[in-house]
Amino acid sequence: MAAPDTDPPAPPRRTRNPELHRRAILEAASQAFAERGYHRATLRDIARRAGVTHGSVLRHFGSKESLFLAAVPGTRDIDALAEDTREPLAARIARGYVHRMESADGNDTFVALLRSAADDTGSAAALYVAMQERTDEVYRRLLDEHDLRHRLPFVAALLVGVTFSRYVVRAGALAEMSAEELTADLTASLEALLHGSSGTGDAPAGQGAGDGDG
Amino acid sequence: MAAPDTDPPAPPRRTRNPELHRRAILEAASQAFAERGYHRATLRDIARRAGVTHGSVLRHFGSKESLFLAAVPGTRDIDALAEDTREPLAARIARGYVHRMESADGNDTFVALLRSAADDTGSAAALYVAMQERTDEVYRRLLDEHDLRHRLPFVAALLVGVTFSRYVVRAGALAEMSAEELTADLTASLEALLHGSSGTGDAPAGQGAGDGDG
Repeated sequence: MAAPDTDPPAPPRRTRNPELHRRAILEAASQAFAERGYHRATLRDIARRAGVTHGSVLRHFGSKESLFLAAVPGTRDIDALAEDTREPLAARIARGYVHRMESADGNDTFVALLRSAADDTGSAAALYVAMQERTDEVYRRLLDEHDLRHRLPFVAALLVGVTFSRYVVRAGALAEMSAEELTADLTASLEALLHGSSGTGDAPAGQGAGDGDG
Repeated sequence: MAAPDTDPPAPPRRTRNPELHRRAILEAASQAFAERGYHRATLRDIARRAGVTHGSVLRHFGSKESLFLAAVPGTRDIDALAEDTREPLAARIARGYVHRMESADGNDTFVALLRSAADDTGSAAALYVAMQERTDEVYRRLLDEHDLRHRLPFVAALLVGVTFSRYVVRAGALAEMSAEELTADLTASLEALLHGSSGTGDAPAGQGAGDGDG
């Protein structure tokens, strides 16, 4: 919120409390990454927006990569997923995802990351993987080994694909759904990916099994 | 294949047979779009690669957009999906997708389209939608109204997400799977998306239903 255009004296509240500094930096980083994309956003600009020094940003987060990972809303939201067990997991993921993306109105850092990663196979790709690994950490508490290996990558891919269609391209069936419809259908889809079918790739013999295209 | 650098006399075989012209143009277009991306590829370059005139490309395909859609291998492959009923649909989609993408080795026009669409919200986005609509046409013969509306968009999103992770970013769990493992797990995932759960977003009461984060 507070994004002064010139270098003001650091707000006194913040200088006394490292946690307030940290939060101001995270907020400034989310804005900067969403507005300018990962590559164009600079630590200096983020420090300026947060009303802190460049050194303070580095002290708190170490590097632009780490700051990005800390600022991606999903990685914070997802910690909450593991704790709140009032709803089934699929519903929690769908609700959390849609709520976060709709609030950001397409300016989510995840969208910025997808755009950067599509254009570049260097650091954005590394961040993309780092973000997924961090997400995996949370799921490790929720899924067994088999599902982590065979189902989770497709849960992640589904969210990437939905993000791409609805919030990057912004056109087509997924872009036209209301947030409520998206939440409902996404819940069903995640439910199916997490718990449906055998997960081993055994094709049911519904239409007569065969070898197909050799 | 035949991509002369200067304007040679048109090869006699092709001038006599419009179908050979058509195929040469499609092949040249696939190469050009994959190598240069949608925006940078030109009809003039495609005509040159195919050894035909610019006018001939326009006569056959009308516009760059139409040519792109015709050249995207998926839209041709997918027609075969509807016909071959020896395997269940999920297995056919997975096998067809993996085979096509692995053969293209990341140079598929679908990858070019994802990259362009990520970078641009104009014509690439329109193409992305047009491509999905063309795919939908085929599915219309295979799925009922409910599934077309509530399941198909997520099938498409899953394939976009897998493509993004494995063939654009080329890192992470999906990029590390063998083609066989990907085919097996993708089949299970598609099977679940097409036939699993209720498809209405009703969350099963597995962990006790509740309203969550309001």
